[in-house]
Amino acid sequence: MREQTIGSWLGELASAEPAPGGGAVAAMHAAMAAGLVSMVCELTVGRPKYAEHEATMREVLKEAAERREEAVGLAEEDAKAFKGVTDAYKLPKGTDEEKASRTKAIQEALVEAAEVPLRTAALAAGILELAKRIRPGANVNVLSDVAVAAVSARAALQAAAVNVAVNRASMTDVVARARLEAELARIGDEVAAAEKFIKEIR
Amino acid sequence: MREQTIGSWLGELASAEPAPGGGAVAAMHAAMAAGLVSMVCELTVGRPKYAEHEATMREVLKEAAERREEAVGLAEEDAKAFKGVTDAYKLPKGTDEEKASRTKAIQEALVEAAEVPLRTAALAAGILELAKRIRPGANVNVLSDVAVAAVSARAALQAAAVNVAVNRASMTDVVARARLEAELARIGDEVAAAEKFIKEIR
Repeated sequence: MREQTIGSWLGELASAEPAPGGGAVAAMHAAMAAGLVSMVCELTVGRPKYAEHEATMREVLKEAAERREEAVGLAEEDAKAFKGVTDAYKLPKGTDEEKASRTKAIQEALVEAAEVPLRTAALAAGILELAKRIRPGANVNVLSDVAVAAVSARAALQAAAVNVAVNRASMTDVVARARLEAELARIGDEVAAAEKFIKEIR
Repeated sequence: MREQTIGSWLGELASAEPAPGGGAVAAMHAAMAAGLVSMVCELTVGRPKYAEHEATMREVLKEAAERREEAVGLAEEDAKAFKGVTDAYKLPKGTDEEKASRTKAIQEALVEAAEVPLRTAALAAGILELAKRIRPGANVNVLSDVAVAAVSARAALQAAAVNVAVNRASMTDVVARARLEAELARIGDEVAAAEKFIKEIR
């Protein structure tokens, strides 16, 4: 995906192929959030006015680059996990045995598919933390980019929640459903925290 | 930008070059929102179950493709408008005459730079309308992608507002400031409408 052109990727997103879809978009929001955090650090390091924040900026610079790579990786993984679900739905359902085995495969694939947006949400929450860490010492000329990074991280969280919820809706396992319910509540809290942070900067 | 790879664009975003920055990210959110609207239409057209919505889907399909192109165009324009501002700040300020002419150039560049996020916001609001139009007749299997499209459009709106506000903050013209204040209030309403729509789908 890193080597794909933006035009081509957007074209695939818009196509009848169901992947890339909402899951990849959630991860791309996180990638852009991490990219903006990096940019703010880059425009702050090495400037005497912000010398006391130099160490923080250098640390965050390293972490943000890693988070950006992870985000692109998750956009790719989402397509695979999605394929797992659609493949399971395509299994034969002629006999009772086939039906049972298909149902089991679908349920397993759904649990796996929900893991990707959960990881996207965790990643976005981590990027939001990076934005919070750099805010006090960020070059004031690019403070608005810290805010946009938070907007993108918020979008990644909210989009991830949509994707977790849609997988959860098809699950029959009570324990798995309850766990995802709790995760969704946590992501909801993170979205609210992101919104508060955006308002504070503005 | 269409021909640039995703890895390279994200790398530029993360670099010390101030553009692409938050303005381009806002436009890219809108491009992804439009892409998801297209995907939902593509996965709905031609299916007997959704025949009564066929005409709407075909209309929206055409519009969403146009909006996606416009969004990528705005991401590119934002970098140019931003350069206009930074170039103006670099003008000589030795004499009183130079100072006056530099101030004038900066103010003009700021007004122009604020136009791009305003257009991004208008575009994102339009894409949100497309998502609303397809919701009643969308293939239920990809209704979550309508929600993610709205999340992305919301992020485009909120990021655009951040960018309008930061340009406004440096403006001295009272009339221009008041106009942007009104525009910001309108964008705030659109963000709230998007949030409501996302909650309704979920």
